[in-house]
Amino acid sequence: MNVEELIERYAALTLKVGVNLGPGQPLAINCYVEHAPLARALAAEAYRMGARFVDVLYSDQVVRRSHIEAAPEDALGWSPPWLIERLEALRQADGALVSLTGSPDPTLLDRVEGSRVARSRMKALTEATLELTSGGCRWCVLACPNPGWARTVFGEPDLERLWQAIATVVRLEEPDPLGAWRAHLGELERRAGLLNGYRFEALRFRGPGTDLEVGLLPESRWRSAVQGADSVPFVANMPTEEVFTAPDARRVSGTVAATYPLLLQGRLVDGLRVRFESGRAVELHADEGEALIRAHVASDEGSCRLGEVALVDSSSRVGRTGLVYYDTLLDENAAAHIAFGRAIAETVPEARSLSIEERRARGVNHSSLHTDFMIGSPEVSVAGLTAGGETVSVIEAGVFVLS
Amino acid sequence: MNVEELIERYAALTLKVGVNLGPGQPLAINCYVEHAPLARALAAEAYRMGARFVDVLYSDQVVRRSHIEAAPEDALGWSPPWLIERLEALRQADGALVSLTGSPDPTLLDRVEGSRVARSRMKALTEATLELTSGGCRWCVLACPNPGWARTVFGEPDLERLWQAIATVVRLEEPDPLGAWRAHLGELERRAGLLNGYRFEALRFRGPGTDLEVGLLPESRWRSAVQGADSVPFVANMPTEEVFTAPDARRVSGTVAATYPLLLQGRLVDGLRVRFESGRAVELHADEGEALIRAHVASDEGSCRLGEVALVDSSSRVGRTGLVYYDTLLDENAAAHIAFGRAIAETVPEARSLSIEERRARGVNHSSLHTDFMIGSPEVSVAGLTAGGETVSVIEAGVFVLS
Repeated sequence: MNVEELIERYAALTLKVGVNLGPGQPLAINCYVEHAPLARALAAEAYRMGARFVDVLYSDQVVRRSHIEAAPEDALGWSPPWLIERLEALRQADGALVSLTGSPDPTLLDRVEGSRVARSRMKALTEATLELTSGGCRWCVLACPNPGWARTVFGEPDLERLWQAIATVVRLEEPDPLGAWRAHLGELERRAGLLNGYRFEALRFRGPGTDLEVGLLPESRWRSAVQGADSVPFVANMPTEEVFTAPDARRVSGTVAATYPLLLQGRLVDGLRVRFESGRAVELHADEGEALIRAHVASDEGSCRLGEVALVDSSSRVGRTGLVYYDTLLDENAAAHIAFGRAIAETVPEARSLSIEERRARGVNHSSLHTDFMIGSPEVSVAGLTAGGETVSVIEAGVFVLS
Repeated sequence: MNVEELIERYAALTLKVGVNLGPGQPLAINCYVEHAPLARALAAEAYRMGARFVDVLYSDQVVRRSHIEAAPEDALGWSPPWLIERLEALRQADGALVSLTGSPDPTLLDRVEGSRVARSRMKALTEATLELTSGGCRWCVLACPNPGWARTVFGEPDLERLWQAIATVVRLEEPDPLGAWRAHLGELERRAGLLNGYRFEALRFRGPGTDLEVGLLPESRWRSAVQGADSVPFVANMPTEEVFTAPDARRVSGTVAATYPLLLQGRLVDGLRVRFESGRAVELHADEGEALIRAHVASDEGSCRLGEVALVDSSSRVGRTGLVYYDTLLDENAAAHIAFGRAIAETVPEARSLSIEERRARGVNHSSLHTDFMIGSPEVSVAGLTAGGETVSVIEAGVFVLS
């Protein structure tokens, strides 16, 4: 299948399985200028499916770098109010949101002061986006190959090869991609069900540089990326290989070493090690991007605590490509991961009606950010600790062994 | 000078002479995805000059075509309210606006029904933009060469050649571009002064297919693109070769034949002929795009009347390149032109405080659009008619002869 056919298929799959677009719905697309070929295919397909309006918001990393380098301090992290208004209009019109990832150049910010990068985050806009996506809006994040990203992954701008990798992990080359997705999501839902059955009190991660215990809440549920099951189901990430839940943000302790680099706000964070005490990240080091990740984690009260723990095993198609993508959507679906920041609302349904303070008091984290980082590898084992004091193997040598 | 140097120079000239950007000002840029190289250079230069925030809004012709082809009728001409909010925020923050022209593909809408193209115009957004640019905001329209546009002009995507043409007409290759612009604008201001001295009652255009009389208002002033002279001067178009004023929208009569094709809402209108009676376009034909221009001119009460008459002679650098650009910014600066729609506020200062109805009653046109089309050529002569019944030559055989 050539790249054009893959783009067509990815667009159709995203709208049908990803956001499950209904006739008359408006669709918003967030992406980079370099993502235009896929954004255009998505728009064309959405209108064919009866969309009312497709609103593509193109961001530009190069323009943004100029801002981060030179904007006055008090304008650095400013969120344009009309971009928040745009999300609010989407919510009111019951629209769907598609976001494309795949950085055209992860080295762009290499020479910019890390703490300035952290302070440049559009906090109000991130928060509005988290509110929207946890408030019933159908959304999907997908990856858009582009020459710059291919250069990052392969050392050369081999766009065709990156498209083939994405085609594999998103099951575009299957004779029946929709059927393959249904089967795949069924398997992830089965895993989530298994984990929910055990009701572990905590998970323990053990591997090189990692000895971490992550407390779980009695009321939290394991979920797959299938969401909105009570209304219209959608899949929030494509690819997706994870099952995830909200940890008890008060009961995380030990050390953890990231197993993948992390591209954070356009800049690389590599060799990250974190020590947690009573839920808080109390020590934090990185070989690259340390100033950025430190400032990021200090953003607000909840940003140094965890809002997600997710399991991925070696059956992951992403992991099996054997590539490092320098892109969280891909890399988090190759390896178990945890996330600083806001707990995903769907995993603690009871918390939705609570105030932020009440959530915090119950260990459900709140923050203006949600930042995943990868901690899994074939050398990292995961065990569940039960209320009765038992230790049950969940992932061993990279394989999901819970049954 | 290579293309990268030309881009740098054009960006600096635009911000210094075009919008005369002040430190701390926000800057909004409207452009197509294909304009990214110039948009990025503008952003970088703006931040170097102390801009507070640079907001680049990328439009996408291909996405827009999908909308025009398939959006439901009641959403066809819808203006996203957050885009109007964006302009309002720019006004409140005393920001500047830069718009880039240069269609990446003027054939994109060839197979779309013309009246649908006309109905797809974002009326509320055009109107908000006209309000902003006539309300004291510093703005500048400039041209951004791109491969698709070069193909339209030369039959091949010779980007380098198009950049060289633009460099010539914008005086980028002058040793001192700012000095060259000051001298050039001085000459245009001199012409405007001459015309203002004569206080013609009307202009008469005569040439092949054209015998048109355009009444002038006693209170209207001839202007060059130098604006905001009472506060901070800026130049609204780069290139600019015209002097223009508002006609008496009640006193336009005769026939006129367009001398250039017109790219209107992304679609070609060619071979346009119009007959005016008592200010109104009462007959209208075109060899190409007739349905579009007919529907466009029927948009609202003022859209079939004129809001501008502008003179350009053969000294124009744009005209001297001998090219048809299929881009109004360029082509209107190669030839005398008139515009359907709203009168330019600066040309009738007294009308600013009047209501729309009062303006109309005095012959100052109001509309939600302002659409120029070119009517000048070396074969078209222009004469001024005085109150005393004299006829004074203004342009003969392409040369501005008024003295």
